[in-house]
Amino acid sequence: MSKINLKGKLSKFSDHWSPKVIAEMNDYQFKLVKIKGDFVWHNHNDTDEVFIVIEGEMMIEFKDETVELNEGEMYVVPKGVEHKPYAVNECKVMLVEPRGVVNTGNTEGDLTASNDVWI
Amino acid sequence: MSKINLKGKLSKFSDHWSPKVIAEMNDYQFKLVKIKGDFVWHNHNDTDEVFIVIEGEMMIEFKDETVELNEGEMYVVPKGVEHKPYAVNECKVMLVEPRGVVNTGNTEGDLTASNDVWI
Repeated sequence: MSKINLKGKLSKFSDHWSPKVIAEMNDYQFKLVKIKGDFVWHNHNDTDEVFIVIEGEMMIEFKDETVELNEGEMYVVPKGVEHKPYAVNECKVMLVEPRGVVNTGNTEGDLTASNDVWI
Repeated sequence: MSKINLKGKLSKFSDHWSPKVIAEMNDYQFKLVKIKGDFVWHNHNDTDEVFIVIEGEMMIEFKDETVELNEGEMYVVPKGVEHKPYAVNECKVMLVEPRGVVNTGNTEGDLTASNDVWI
């Protein structure tokens, strides 16, 4: 086990909407992802999902409101709740969720990323 | 559900070694804690424990090595592994662990904090 430097890990990839696993705690994973533009509406039927903004600004659109998250802010999307993340400019985010969660949840498509890719 | 600003939450308390819950994801909790000085040797028999440094510098002493963590660095202490956190100057840390974990693990004592205190 060695320490994990978030910015160091972020410097190792440049693709968008493709989360990379950086650590596991029990059966949960910590992932880094760079996002830009629009994601798809989706939900995760079995789990809550945590977003923590490391750098930049992102939005999470819900059916009844839109939440803006800046650096140093986090949000817990409850399980089953439809949401659509987006970012005007590139935003760097840490996700925390159980091992095995697919990024697009119930909405498989072009933006569905390979799961369990470590960096 | 509203967004959580880490520095805003950190401004609301000043005591050391007393983690405050800021969010729950399934049966896991995100906690903020300010640390300064020496903690006690302890382990958590049932769970890994994540440390993420928000501001400052801390050390985690293990039986065979000492790890230094700076801002933007994280570490997963595996379950059952004896460790002793400490910080020369005040350090602000986010912890992630299952609901119900007590800060001093198997070593109850003066530094054992109330559990499940939200801020």
